[in-house]
Amino acid sequence: MVSTFPTPNFIDLSQIRLEIRSLQTRLVEWRRRFHQRPELGFQEQLTAEFLSQKLTEMGIDHRTGIAKTGIVATIESNHPGPVLAIRADMDALPIQEENDVSYRSKHDGIMHACGHDGHTAIALGTACYLSQHRDDFKGTVKIIFQPAEESPGGAKPMIEEGVLKNPDVDAIIGLHLWNNLPLGTIGVRSGALMAAVECFRCTIQGKGGHGAMPHQTVDSIVVSAQIVNALQTIVARNVNPIDSAVVTVGELHAGTALNVIADTARMSGTVRYFNPALEDYIGKRIDEIIAGVCHGHGATYELDYWRLYPPTINDARIADLVRSVALEVVETPAGIVPECQTMGGEDMSFFLQEVPGCYFFLGSANPEKGLAYPHHHPRFDFDEAALGVGVEMFVRCVEKFCQ
Amino acid sequence: MVSTFPTPNFIDLSQIRLEIRSLQTRLVEWRRRFHQRPELGFQEQLTAEFLSQKLTEMGIDHRTGIAKTGIVATIESNHPGPVLAIRADMDALPIQEENDVSYRSKHDGIMHACGHDGHTAIALGTACYLSQHRDDFKGTVKIIFQPAEESPGGAKPMIEEGVLKNPDVDAIIGLHLWNNLPLGTIGVRSGALMAAVECFRCTIQGKGGHGAMPHQTVDSIVVSAQIVNALQTIVARNVNPIDSAVVTVGELHAGTALNVIADTARMSGTVRYFNPALEDYIGKRIDEIIAGVCHGHGATYELDYWRLYPPTINDARIADLVRSVALEVVETPAGIVPECQTMGGEDMSFFLQEVPGCYFFLGSANPEKGLAYPHHHPRFDFDEAALGVGVEMFVRCVEKFCQ
Amino acid sequence: MVSTFPTPNFIDLSQIRLEIRSLQTRLVEWRRRFHQRPELGFQEQLTAEFLSQKLTEMGIDHRTGIAKTGIVATIESNHPGPVLAIRADMDALPIQEENDVSYRSKHDGIMHACGHDGHTAIALGTACYLSQHRDDFKGTVKIIFQPAEESPGGAKPMIEEGVLKNPDVDAIIGLHLWNNLPLGTIGVRSGALMAAVECFRCTIQGKGGHGAMPHQTVDSIVVSAQIVNALQTIVARNVNPIDSAVVTVGELHAGTALNVIADTARMSGTVRYFNPALEDYIGKRIDEIIAGVCHGHGATYELDYWRLYPPTINDARIADLVRSVALEVVETPAGIVPECQTMGGEDMSFFLQEVPGCYFFLGSANPEKGLAYPHHHPRFDFDEAALGVGVEMFVRCVEKFCQ
Amino acid sequence: MVSTFPTPNFIDLSQIRLEIRSLQTRLVEWRRRFHQRPELGFQEQLTAEFLSQKLTEMGIDHRTGIAKTGIVATIESNHPGPVLAIRADMDALPIQEENDVSYRSKHDGIMHACGHDGHTAIALGTACYLSQHRDDFKGTVKIIFQPAEESPGGAKPMIEEGVLKNPDVDAIIGLHLWNNLPLGTIGVRSGALMAAVECFRCTIQGKGGHGAMPHQTVDSIVVSAQIVNALQTIVARNVNPIDSAVVTVGELHAGTALNVIADTARMSGTVRYFNPALEDYIGKRIDEIIAGVCHGHGATYELDYWRLYPPTINDARIADLVRSVALEVVETPAGIVPECQTMGGEDMSFFLQEVPGCYFFLGSANPEKGLAYPHHHPRFDFDEAALGVGVEMFVRCVEKFCQ
Repeated sequence: MVSTFPTPNFIDLSQIRLEIRSLQTRLVEWRRRFHQRPELGFQEQLTAEFLSQKLTEMGIDHRTGIAKTGIVATIESNHPGPVLAIRADMDALPIQEENDVSYRSKHDGIMHACGHDGHTAIALGTACYLSQHRDDFKGTVKIIFQPAEESPGGAKPMIEEGVLKNPDVDAIIGLHLWNNLPLGTIGVRSGALMAAVECFRCTIQGKGGHGAMPHQTVDSIVVSAQIVNALQTIVARNVNPIDSAVVTVGELHAGTALNVIADTARMSGTVRYFNPALEDYIGKRIDEIIAGVCHGHGATYELDYWRLYPPTINDARIADLVRSVALEVVETPAGIVPECQTMGGEDMSFFLQEVPGCYFFLGSANPEKGLAYPHHHPRFDFDEAALGVGVEMFVRCVEKFCQ
Repeated sequence: MVSTFPTPNFIDLSQIRLEIRSLQTRLVEWRRRFHQRPELGFQEQLTAEFLSQKLTEMGIDHRTGIAKTGIVATIESNHPGPVLAIRADMDALPIQEENDVSYRSKHDGIMHACGHDGHTAIALGTACYLSQHRDDFKGTVKIIFQPAEESPGGAKPMIEEGVLKNPDVDAIIGLHLWNNLPLGTIGVRSGALMAAVECFRCTIQGKGGHGAMPHQTVDSIVVSAQIVNALQTIVARNVNPIDSAVVTVGELHAGTALNVIADTARMSGTVRYFNPALEDYIGKRIDEIIAGVCHGHGATYELDYWRLYPPTINDARIADLVRSVALEVVETPAGIVPECQTMGGEDMSFFLQEVPGCYFFLGSANPEKGLAYPHHHPRFDFDEAALGVGVEMFVRCVEKFCQ
Repeated sequence: MVSTFPTPNFIDLSQIRLEIRSLQTRLVEWRRRFHQRPELGFQEQLTAEFLSQKLTEMGIDHRTGIAKTGIVATIESNHPGPVLAIRADMDALPIQEENDVSYRSKHDGIMHACGHDGHTAIALGTACYLSQHRDDFKGTVKIIFQPAEESPGGAKPMIEEGVLKNPDVDAIIGLHLWNNLPLGTIGVRSGALMAAVECFRCTIQGKGGHGAMPHQTVDSIVVSAQIVNALQTIVARNVNPIDSAVVTVGELHAGTALNVIADTARMSGTVRYFNPALEDYIGKRIDEIIAGVCHGHGATYELDYWRLYPPTINDARIADLVRSVALEVVETPAGIVPECQTMGGEDMSFFLQEVPGCYFFLGSANPEKGLAYPHHHPRFDFDEAALGVGVEMFVRCVEKFCQ
Repeated sequence: MVSTFPTPNFIDLSQIRLEIRSLQTRLVEWRRRFHQRPELGFQEQLTAEFLSQKLTEMGIDHRTGIAKTGIVATIESNHPGPVLAIRADMDALPIQEENDVSYRSKHDGIMHACGHDGHTAIALGTACYLSQHRDDFKGTVKIIFQPAEESPGGAKPMIEEGVLKNPDVDAIIGLHLWNNLPLGTIGVRSGALMAAVECFRCTIQGKGGHGAMPHQTVDSIVVSAQIVNALQTIVARNVNPIDSAVVTVGELHAGTALNVIADTARMSGTVRYFNPALEDYIGKRIDEIIAGVCHGHGATYELDYWRLYPPTINDARIADLVRSVALEVVETPAGIVPECQTMGGEDMSFFLQEVPGCYFFLGSANPEKGLAYPHHHPRFDFDEAALGVGVEMFVRCVEKFCQ
């Protein structure tokens, strides 16, 4: 989807935009600082310390140590009104950076390869702006700096520690820098944006034996092959074709010698879908299929199946609000991309299960500058011009939300 | 296996052979008469009437109407001794003959396409010879003219009507004219010669529906495909590779329109094996596999499985006797073919379950004369020189057996 | 999706609605007349004669005999303006009606089981209304009465005969009475509404033989089973999970006897998808998979693959217009159902390939009256109150379109 | 097959037997010495040194260093006559012994777990006896002590170094101690005794990718599963059911993470058969099937297929000789087991391709003494009474062969 969509002119020179442009140098400085010191999930100490120090400097009330390293900053306006939350994730990935840039990761084997450094900088910039414009909006904005989005998930523990309460959050928004879209575009849609993520591991227990004497064995490789085949029918036949779903077997390992029939086969995989009604269904079908094949061949199995994240589902009303704000920001309908669904997952989904909200994609690719590697790639990087666009999106959403 | 094996000289000009050669004209006449008036299983009235008339003319005691159309002729020698049975089958097949010969079938759609006309003629010739040489052997010979070998099986009802009793049969022999071997060879082996025959019919009940809405259905074609695949593992993995086995799905029928998901699939097949230990095993595996696949996909099934014939297993001692006789008859070790097993079935197997015995193949092909079509082919025919060889085999076996 | 959604009050008592309500008796009369005299595709003579007679009575210019039985009625307003086409299909299905109603089909084995009788009545009612209000809209309305929607497709030949030209049509709308939605709702969405329909027939040529001698054969049932299995991977692995697709094998027929290995297997099926980019892809994958399996097993094949209908894709702008009209008509946002995609196909898609337009679903089920059987069911019927709603939708679309 | 067959009486107290019995203490001593110092293939230095020293002490001409560690001892009788070879294998296995016996392996991780220690002791005992009875047989006996039977095969290089020449060997015999048969039985049969062994390794190259985006990948696990399935048809459908064959996939490894589609799958396996006509066939079918499935799914592959050993096929005449000798030795027909085929392989097959011969199984299990573990098991051991029986078999074969 990365195209040579022209970088927009952003010709609107309103006060908001002018002020946010003046923030750009600090946004880049913060983002590069985070990029140089990436931290894995629930270990974002340096990041949290820096944020806390900046928030204090900005005179913003905030609570630290939520779900280990999370922070919630609360910015009250000078007027009564609703409570809007803005969520940013802070964690990096266990990837060795291959970019040769001045702000390259200093932590060996750890890299901000998904853009969370930018998310954190945008949220901090938004906090900065709002704290200086408490007359320009109504109600309260809570900025949630969340740990561990990639794994194992910081959204749920933050919710459990009450970040959506006192005051109660009315709606939540968040964004993902998105290299599948060019700078100057916003991916926004009502309903499902990202997929539920479920996982499984399965051990097929056959009966090993001499490779020349299959009749004395239960061949776990043959059983596994039939399972892999039969699993294809879940997406092909069982799930409504209108719904999107994926069943991937990512690993299959069996056998230790070419002339010995494998006792045991181990497989693991991932499941994706948008429609919440599929929550119990696909796992059940996987279990039924494995059970059927195993029983038919005298094998046994152990299946471990777990849900990671639910689907990321945007509220229609908040998505409309974000879409109208996006139109102001990118200044052209062609910059709004509703066809931006992805089977990737996000733990923003847990927040969206609790309160209405909208998660959206902020176009960040700039192929002409070589900034178009996919997320999680060791050479991932994005166009930092997107940082200011992100702040503008959040600020305008805040102002429009409370109207 | 049909080769250009040279027709043997049969240089031995012993008394037996000379006398049998003098029978040859009548053997051919009888065989052609049977060939012209073929009759399906349990309907062999004309054949039985002709046999009875000839046996009466020969002064041979016989009982008719056994298992509807079967006959047992009893030829006592002038000396006390054991009882040997010789079995010949009389029925033809529902095939339209395509041969253009003077003795072509006069019964439309029915044909002696397997050689049973020859078997009957050989047995009658043997009866004729033995009845005239009651001094040359000891004990008693029972000649069993059996109906319905092809289907549904006349051997079992004849046994139930007591043909092996009064006097009790000590051993039994029989032969099959065999176009897989050239004239002048005899296929004889100890142990399994022909396979057990079992059959099944299965209905897979899915849930039909619109071809565009698979999620509302259980696709019986997809379920059947997985069953057919999984059934391959019975022979490939479950049966000892030393043993021979076949699982064939001969029919699979499902669906009535290209855009409608098939409610029901119907399949049928046949199972073959030599080792009697597999009797309960393969049917059980078929059931387990179908059950497993159906359960895994929410389908149900009905399986009808039945045994037709057990394997045809020759007694080692009687097989040795037949082999030594064959060596006298064909006069060269190269004419004895022990590698003559076939997965085809034979209801001679029921007799061999009751008494020790030996069923053997009488080479009958003569490619140079165009007599090499396979059994059950509408142009099947055999070299009638084999008729005399068959009589000689039986007569010499009788003489040797009672020694 | 059929629910007990309350029948709306339609409290708006504007002039349009009052006049359309006064048409209701004639709409029902016309619809029942069509229902009693259903005609298969390209044989809609009685229907066309009746329409032509009524259009003449109404003083409406029309051309008959287009694509055999099609009619185009042209209603010019008293003001210059754009050209909007309204399309209705006229054909019935080869189904024996099982309803016991006064207007039951009088044509044995033929039934309006999909609602086209209603579509034709609504279009005629719309023509009637518009012909009497030529001052109330601008430009021209073309009403296209199309034959043979179900099969083999009348849209394409009508386009080829120029129905979208002279004057050139600027946009087109159409509706389908829809028992998957309750009366009082309208299914409308931008983009793909209904699926592309493609079809295939394939003959797998193996080599038949004796059921006990698989090594002399190429088992077409085993080959077919592997093909059916492998075809599941097209939807499960090859198509983007964001896109919807279906590959159904609806028929699989092979074999004539349980103990004979099947020479030939015949299968047929249907393919569905929304994304036009998949047009050449799925058929190619089917061919590649069949080729691969056949080559791997020594079989050959003939594949006949053809496209029936492309996907039915609504123009965003016209869909917005229809949505806003629908909101006026059903008077509540809850009555607008955007989640109404179906993998069923429609040859309206050919018109939508030529000019921008919108096809929408008109809720017609009324479970409390027993009117909720699915389309193509022998007991299908709909709530005739939907007829007036359909006319109101079309009339208001006309008036809004030309503004 | 291990039963409680009673240990035979060996009541024949002929001179041969008495003298061999007097050798028993030394046979056991030698065997235990070999057992304690097991050596892997082509590393049998200690074994060869000991043998050479003993042969020298016995005054037997021998050549060492053939195919690295092999030895050929030549024992000429005092009479002209034919040349018979006796073959014994010397190598051990990379297995950690779990027996707790006084003669337990002293070489860590190496064990005589297949009985080759016994084979070598029996051959040495035979050499000893024959060297002292050069008047009792005619011609020459060559005793071949072969390295590396288990892997990678020492028979072929010994043949290439001329062990069957000068003087030219007329026939060859050999034995395998066999825990599948009880002490006191001999497994001997004409034709195929052990299977051909062929092996393969295959890499399936798909295209890896994100587990949620299968359409961007070629899923090597799905391709492999279809290959494993399709390979079952080789034994189930392609090979004559009369023939025995095995196709085992022993290893299948693919994938490194549950949410990543596997780029590459690696599988390996073994093939077995008796009928030499299958030599080129099964490997070709494997290649065709893998090619077909890969082409159907856009994957590529590399297949490495190699022949290890041909089938071990006994000459009918020599097998008859061995059978008649066995009958003298075990003294009862019940002790001769013709049904002793195994799909295991043996490089004795290479010798039997060069000269007529017979390889036979020497019953060595004694369940009552706990000596019944299968070959290659870490607790494998055999009844040492079999050592004397082995020598007696060889000695009597020598004496009978030269008659």
